[in-house]
Amino acid sequence: MKWQDIGDIPCSIARSLAVLGDRWTLMVLRNAFLGIKRFDDFQTNLGVTRHVLAERLQRLVEAGVFAKVPYQQKPERFEYRLTEKGRDLYPVLLALVAWGDKWLDEGRGAPLEYLHQPCGHKFRPTMVCSECGEPLNPRQVMPMIGPGFVIAPKQAAAGE
Amino acid sequence: MKWQDIGDIPCSIARSLAVLGDRWTLMVLRNAFLGIKRFDDFQTNLGVTRHVLAERLQRLVEAGVFAKVPYQQKPERFEYRLTEKGRDLYPVLLALVAWGDKWLDEGRGAPLEYLHQPCGHKFRPTMVCSECGEPLNPRQVMPMIGPGFVIAPKQAAAGE
Repeated sequence: MKWQDIGDIPCSIARSLAVLGDRWTLMVLRNAFLGIKRFDDFQTNLGVTRHVLAERLQRLVEAGVFAKVPYQQKPERFEYRLTEKGRDLYPVLLALVAWGDKWLDEGRGAPLEYLHQPCGHKFRPTMVCSECGEPLNPRQVMPMIGPGFVIAPKQAAAGE
Repeated sequence: MKWQDIGDIPCSIARSLAVLGDRWTLMVLRNAFLGIKRFDDFQTNLGVTRHVLAERLQRLVEAGVFAKVPYQQKPERFEYRLTEKGRDLYPVLLALVAWGDKWLDEGRGAPLEYLHQPCGHKFRPTMVCSECGEPLNPRQVMPMIGPGFVIAPKQAAAGE
């Protein structure tokens, strides 16, 4: 299977990865959640080439993760604002933070800590069951075929 | 900044992505959480080339995400078992599932549904605050410099 076909398999992880694309994309999103909106600020912060950054931002705009909004007229300048779809990626970033904090801190502790303003405490992001509120353990979760388990027509036609 | 240096910046997301590497890596992990352990089974399921798969598995073994364990002697055969560090990636996968289910289901509903066996309900993975149990909203979370916010020596020496 080629990578560009992976979004066709009925799997929400494959589809998500087909949009998120790669590591730079996730670093762009990280910066967006830290409040960065402008091309030059992304570029300075990440040190990525302008070409790569432009391509990733464009793809995220096409995917509906960012809205490209003018903030100045002459010359026209744009900023990249997270949409609702984009803001909904926050748990993905938090899950990466939590794992890196626990396993990749080189013994120094977390690079950043996070304060939950409504409760006033530093916290760890914790993935729980929406129904009972308990943390999720892969050994206690059973996947079942859902309504969207349909092989995409393109794949079926190609006989793959 | 080159991608290979990104793990040096004091950011748990950057460090996590330096290990997780790319989309195939995450698809390999997805399959591991669905119970796949053997090279040929990963290969059949993902349709990735053997070369790419071998490279990704090797990297995950080196990172301590998989343990490579013999399951047969003559000829010697190995399987790839998630370690504790690997199992701790479950929330990353669940966060990708939740986002894909909500935003990329093409109107058909989720490809897979998940039953939480302890409570007996289908659930949505939900990222909450470890202290108060409320769902996390990026507008209510304040990042603060933590104890591990130290620029790696390699970067400092290079004057970057």
